[in-house]
Amino acid sequence: MTAKVAIVMGSQSDWPTMQCAAAVLDELGVAHEARIVSAHRTPDRLHAFGKGAADEGFHVIIAGAGGAAHLPGMIAALTHLPVLGVPVKSKALNGLDSLLSIVQMPAGVPTGTLAIGEAGATNAGILAASILALGDDALATRLKEYRAAQTEKVGETPVD
Amino acid sequence: MTAKVAIVMGSQSDWPTMQCAAAVLDELGVAHEARIVSAHRTPDRLHAFGKGAADEGFHVIIAGAGGAAHLPGMIAALTHLPVLGVPVKSKALNGLDSLLSIVQMPAGVPTGTLAIGEAGATNAGILAASILALGDDALATRLKEYRAAQTEKVGETPVD
Amino acid sequence: MTAKVAIVMGSQSDWPTMQCAAAVLDELGVAHEARIVSAHRTPDRLHAFGKGAADEGFHVIIAGAGGAAHLPGMIAALTHLPVLGVPVKSKALNGLDSLLSIVQMPAGVPTGTLAIGEAGATNAGILAASILALGDDALATRLKEYRAAQTEKVGETPVD
Amino acid sequence: MTAKVAIVMGSQSDWPTMQCAAAVLDELGVAHEARIVSAHRTPDRLHAFGKGAADEGFHVIIAGAGGAAHLPGMIAALTHLPVLGVPVKSKALNGLDSLLSIVQMPAGVPTGTLAIGEAGATNAGILAASILALGDDALATRLKEYRAAQTEKVGETPVD
Amino acid sequence: MTAKVAIVMGSQSDWPTMQCAAAVLDELGVAHEARIVSAHRTPDRLHAFGKGAADEGFHVIIAGAGGAAHLPGMIAALTHLPVLGVPVKSKALNGLDSLLSIVQMPAGVPTGTLAIGEAGATNAGILAASILALGDDALATRLKEYRAAQTEKVGETPVD
Amino acid sequence: MTAKVAIVMGSQSDWPTMQCAAAVLDELGVAHEARIVSAHRTPDRLHAFGKGAADEGFHVIIAGAGGAAHLPGMIAALTHLPVLGVPVKSKALNGLDSLLSIVQMPAGVPTGTLAIGEAGATNAGILAASILALGDDALATRLKEYRAAQTEKVGETPVD
Amino acid sequence: MTAKVAIVMGSQSDWPTMQCAAAVLDELGVAHEARIVSAHRTPDRLHAFGKGAADEGFHVIIAGAGGAAHLPGMIAALTHLPVLGVPVKSKALNGLDSLLSIVQMPAGVPTGTLAIGEAGATNAGILAASILALGDDALATRLKEYRAAQTEKVGETPVD
Amino acid sequence: MTAKVAIVMGSQSDWPTMQCAAAVLDELGVAHEARIVSAHRTPDRLHAFGKGAADEGFHVIIAGAGGAAHLPGMIAALTHLPVLGVPVKSKALNGLDSLLSIVQMPAGVPTGTLAIGEAGATNAGILAASILALGDDALATRLKEYRAAQTEKVGETPVD
Repeated sequence: MTAKVAIVMGSQSDWPTMQCAAAVLDELGVAHEARIVSAHRTPDRLHAFGKGAADEGFHVIIAGAGGAAHLPGMIAALTHLPVLGVPVKSKALNGLDSLLSIVQMPAGVPTGTLAIGEAGATNAGILAASILALGDDALATRLKEYRAAQTEKVGETPVD
Repeated sequence: MTAKVAIVMGSQSDWPTMQCAAAVLDELGVAHEARIVSAHRTPDRLHAFGKGAADEGFHVIIAGAGGAAHLPGMIAALTHLPVLGVPVKSKALNGLDSLLSIVQMPAGVPTGTLAIGEAGATNAGILAASILALGDDALATRLKEYRAAQTEKVGETPVD
Repeated sequence: MTAKVAIVMGSQSDWPTMQCAAAVLDELGVAHEARIVSAHRTPDRLHAFGKGAADEGFHVIIAGAGGAAHLPGMIAALTHLPVLGVPVKSKALNGLDSLLSIVQMPAGVPTGTLAIGEAGATNAGILAASILALGDDALATRLKEYRAAQTEKVGETPVD
Repeated sequence: MTAKVAIVMGSQSDWPTMQCAAAVLDELGVAHEARIVSAHRTPDRLHAFGKGAADEGFHVIIAGAGGAAHLPGMIAALTHLPVLGVPVKSKALNGLDSLLSIVQMPAGVPTGTLAIGEAGATNAGILAASILALGDDALATRLKEYRAAQTEKVGETPVD
Repeated sequence: MTAKVAIVMGSQSDWPTMQCAAAVLDELGVAHEARIVSAHRTPDRLHAFGKGAADEGFHVIIAGAGGAAHLPGMIAALTHLPVLGVPVKSKALNGLDSLLSIVQMPAGVPTGTLAIGEAGATNAGILAASILALGDDALATRLKEYRAAQTEKVGETPVD
Repeated sequence: MTAKVAIVMGSQSDWPTMQCAAAVLDELGVAHEARIVSAHRTPDRLHAFGKGAADEGFHVIIAGAGGAAHLPGMIAALTHLPVLGVPVKSKALNGLDSLLSIVQMPAGVPTGTLAIGEAGATNAGILAASILALGDDALATRLKEYRAAQTEKVGETPVD
Repeated sequence: MTAKVAIVMGSQSDWPTMQCAAAVLDELGVAHEARIVSAHRTPDRLHAFGKGAADEGFHVIIAGAGGAAHLPGMIAALTHLPVLGVPVKSKALNGLDSLLSIVQMPAGVPTGTLAIGEAGATNAGILAASILALGDDALATRLKEYRAAQTEKVGETPVD
Repeated sequence: MTAKVAIVMGSQSDWPTMQCAAAVLDELGVAHEARIVSAHRTPDRLHAFGKGAADEGFHVIIAGAGGAAHLPGMIAALTHLPVLGVPVKSKALNGLDSLLSIVQMPAGVPTGTLAIGEAGATNAGILAASILALGDDALATRLKEYRAAQTEKVGETPVD
C-alpha cells in the first residue's frame, strides 16, 4: 500500500508529539510515512519535498513544528495538496507561538491547524483520514467505527 | 451540480466574513451552500445538520463562528466529514477567543482551523477545494491555475 | 432526596477538578449527581441530557470542561436552567482557552463562569447552593454558616 | 412588584453596557433596580449595599465593572446571594483585565461571570431570570418563550 | 518602635511570597507588622483595617494577593495612605491575573504595583522604605547603603 | 514653592497622558515640574537626572513611557527616591508591553506602577501626594478632602 | 553605488510600514533596494532570493511580514547573511502573531527582530547601517551624527 | 586575538542561558568576552560600558536580561554599535515580559532581538558571527561550514 499521508516535522524532538498522528493512522489502516524536514535547517529539502509531494503520491500532508513554526505554511506554499498543521508545544510560550505561526496564514495559502501538542497530532491523523475517506468507502467505514468506539468508551459516571 | 461544500455560520453577522469562502469557491467552480446554524440559539438545527450532512451529499463543511465559537467543534462531533473552522473576529478580544475555542479540540474530534477573519474564510474555501480536488482532476487543474495566477500577481517591487 | 444539582464534565480526567464541586455540595447538604457528558465524543448524550435536565428534576447544572470547552455553553443552549461553567486547566494554555471558550457566550445563552480549576469547581458548588437557597431557608442558613465558618478560619497573622 | 434583581455598576460610564441587563429583564417581566456602587470611590456604600442586599429583598445581584474590576467579587464577599459579574470593556486591554479580575475568585466566594461587554450584560439578565424562574413558574414560561422566540428569529440562509 | 509599615495579605498561602517584604524591611531597620486580611473571606476585617490603618499609626501599606486580587485596591479605597500592591503568582495564570487585578485601578484610587512574586514583595519593602526615608534621614542613609552594597555585590564576570 | 514632584516622560508624545498627573497635583496644591527625559535618545540626560534628582530637591518621581518603557526603571536604578511608573498606551500592543516593561523589575530596584494610560497618570499624581502627605498635614487634609469630594460625586442611580 | 541592503516584504501592503526602513537608509546614505518576495505566494522567488542574496552583493537583509510571518526566518534559512525581521502590524492580533512568528526561531538560524510596525522598520534601517558601519568609517560618522542629532531634537519640557 | 563580541548580562543567573552565545562563538572561532552589567543594580557600570564599548574594540554587543529587561535597550542608547538582545526566560511570565521589554524599542534606537532563552542566546552568537563575517572572509567560510554541518545533521526519518 502506497503511503497517502506524509507526516513531516521540523526536528527529531517533535516526534514524541507527531507519533500520535502516526498511531491513529495505523489504527485507521491508513498508510503513512514520517520524515524530518526542517524549514530552517534544511530549506532545500523543504523545497524539494513541497514541490514533489503530489508526485510522490501523497494526498494529505501533516506538518508539525514548534516556536516560529514555518514548516506547515511553507509546505502549503509549495503544493496544492491539503496541508494540516500541528503546533508543537514550545519551551517558553507553551505552543502559543507555534499556534499563531501556523494558523495565521494570509489569504491564498491555507493550513488546516489542529490543537497544540499531542491532541492536535492525533486529530491531524483523524482529519487526514476523514479527507481520504471521501474517496475510500472502506476507510469511511473504519473511521465511523473508530468514532463510534470512541463514543462507546465514554463512561456514564466519573470514578475516583 | 450538487453542492459539495456547506458553509455554515453561527449568525447573519458572520456572513461578511464567511462570504469570502463562498467567493473563492465560486472562483474555483465548486458548488456550495451557505446556511445559518447557531450552536447556541438553534441547537436542534445544529444536531440535525451535523447528523445529516453526509446524507445531504456534503463532502466538506466550513463552519465559522466568533467568541465562544462552538459551531465548528460541535459539527465535527456530529459527523465524520472533514470540518474546517473559521474564527470570526470578535468585538472585545479580536478573535483570540474564537480561535482558541475552535482550534483547541480534544483528541478524537478534529477541526482544521484557519486564520482569524476574512483571510481564514478565503483559505477555508481553498482548503476545501484542495480536499475535493483529490477526487476531481478538473478541479485540481483549476486549483493549480488559481495558485499560479496568484503567484503571477505578486509584483517585483513595491509601489508608493 | 432528589438531586437538584447535576455536575457534568467532558471527561473522566476532569473529575479531580470537578469533585471539588461535589465536595462542597456534600458539605452544604445539597444532593447532586455527577455524570460524564462529552460534547464532542457523546453529542447525542449531550443533546438528551440538555433537553431532559429540567424534567429529570435538576435545578442547576454545573458543567466543567477544558481546552475548546464547549460543554457548558452547549448545555446552556439546550435548557433554560441556570448553567454554571468551570474551566478545567488545560495542558498547553493552562486553562485560558477553557476560560474563553466558556465565558465568551453570545447574547441570548448565558453560562455563569467560575475561576479556572479547583477553586472554580468549589465556587460552582457554592454558587449553585446560593441559587437553591433562594427557595430553601434551611439551605440558606447552612450556607450562611458555611460562609461564617470560612471567615472564622482566617487567622490574624501569617505563620512560618 | 418588588425588585428582585439589583443591577449595580462601578460608574455611570458602565451604564451603556449594563442597561442591556435592564432591557432583557424588562422584556422578561422581572423587576429590577439599577444603582451605582463604586468599590473604589464609595467603599462604604459598597459595604452597606452588600450587607443589606438580602434584607432589601434582592434575590440576585448583577454587578458590572471594568479594569481592576473589584465590584462583583467584593459584593460576593458581603452577601450569600448569587452574584453575577459582567466584565465591562476597558480602554487599554479591551476587558481582558476586567474579565480576569472578576472571574478568578478564590475558593469560597463565587461570582458567576458572563462575557465581556453588552453580550455579557444581556446574558446576566437572562441568567438572573433563569435563577428566579426556579421559584416562579410564570417567569419560567416567559423565559422558555423568550428562548423559543430567539430560536425562531434565526434565519436559514445568510442574506447580503 | 511603632510599626510604620503594614504587610497585609489575602491568605496564609501568600506568606512565603510576602515574607520577602518583611525580610528586606528588617534588613533596613523598618518596623513592620504582618496581618492576614482577606478581602473576600473577611470583608469586615478589610473594612476595619482600611479605615483604621492611619489611626493605627501605619504610614505605608503593602498588600499582596493572587488571582482576582482585590485586597490592595480595596484597602486603597478605604485609606488615603500610600498602598503598594504585590501580585502573588497564581496557579493557572502565573500571576498575570493578579497583576492586572491590582494595577489596572481606575482614576482616583491608586495602588503602586510591584512585580509578580517574590521580587515584587522585596521591592515593595524597599519602596516603602524609600517613602519613609523622605522623613527619616537615618533610614535614608541605611537605604543608600543597602543600595550601594547591592551594587557592590554584582560580580564583573559570570562564573560557571 | 519648590517642586517636590518631578514628572518625567520619554517623549513629547507622552504628554497628553502625563499631563493628567500634573493636573491632579495642581488640584491638590503640590508643586511639580515636568521634563522630557528619553532613556533611549538622551541617556546622558537620564543619567544626570536620576543621579541629581534628590539634590534638586525632588521627593517623588513620576515617570511615564510606552513600548519598551525603560525610563521608570532606569531612574529607579539611579536614585533612592520613590519612583512611580506610568505605562503609556502603545500603538500595537495597547500598553501591555509598557506595563510589563515597567512593573516586572528585579528585586532590589522598585518602581511603583500604576494603570495603563490616563487613569494611571492621574493615580501617579494622587499616590505622589499621599506619599508627600505623610510629612505635610495640610496636604493630608487636602488629599482627604479630594477623596471625599470624589466619593460625593458618585451618583446613586445611572442616568441615560 | 551598489545596494548593500535589501528590503524585502511579503506584500505590497507591507510597504507603508517598510518604507520607513528605506527612508532612514536614505537619510544615512546607505544604498538599498526594495523587493516584494512572498514566502507563501512566491516560494520560488523566495528560494532564489535567499540563495542568491550574497552573490547579488547584499550585506544585510531587512525582511518584513505580518501574521504567520515566515519571510524573515525563511530567508535566514537560505543565507548566512545577517537577516533583520520587522513584524508588520496584523489586522486581528495587532502584530503579536507577526512578532512571535519572526522572533521565536530555533537555535541555528537567527533573525534579529525589531519592534512591531513603523518603529521597527525604522530601527531595522538603523541597525543595518550600524552593521555596515563596522566596515565603513564614513557611514559610522554619519550614523553617529544621526544619533547625535536625534538626541539634540529632544526638548527639555513638554509643550501643550 | 582581541574580543570583538561582548556578551553582557544583567545577572549571574543569566549565565546558564547566555553561555550558549559564548559556546557557539567559540565553535565559530570568534573571540568574545562575557561581563555582568546590571542596568538596575550597576547603572554606572552600564553607562561606562555602553559609552566605551566601541573604544574597547567591540564590534557587536550581545545583551541578555529577563523580566523588565532594560539592559539591551539601554546599551543601544549608549552606543552606535549593533546590539543584539536575548530575552531570558522569567519566572512568572516565561520570558514574554523579557521579550516585549527588549524588542519594542522606539524608533531611533534598535535592538536586534532573538528568541526567548537558550535558542535565542545561541542565535545571538550566530548573528554576531554573520555580522563580523561581512568583513572577515575566513569567518564567513567557517560560518557557512557551520551552517552546512547543521544541515547535514538533520536526519531523514524520526527515530523512536
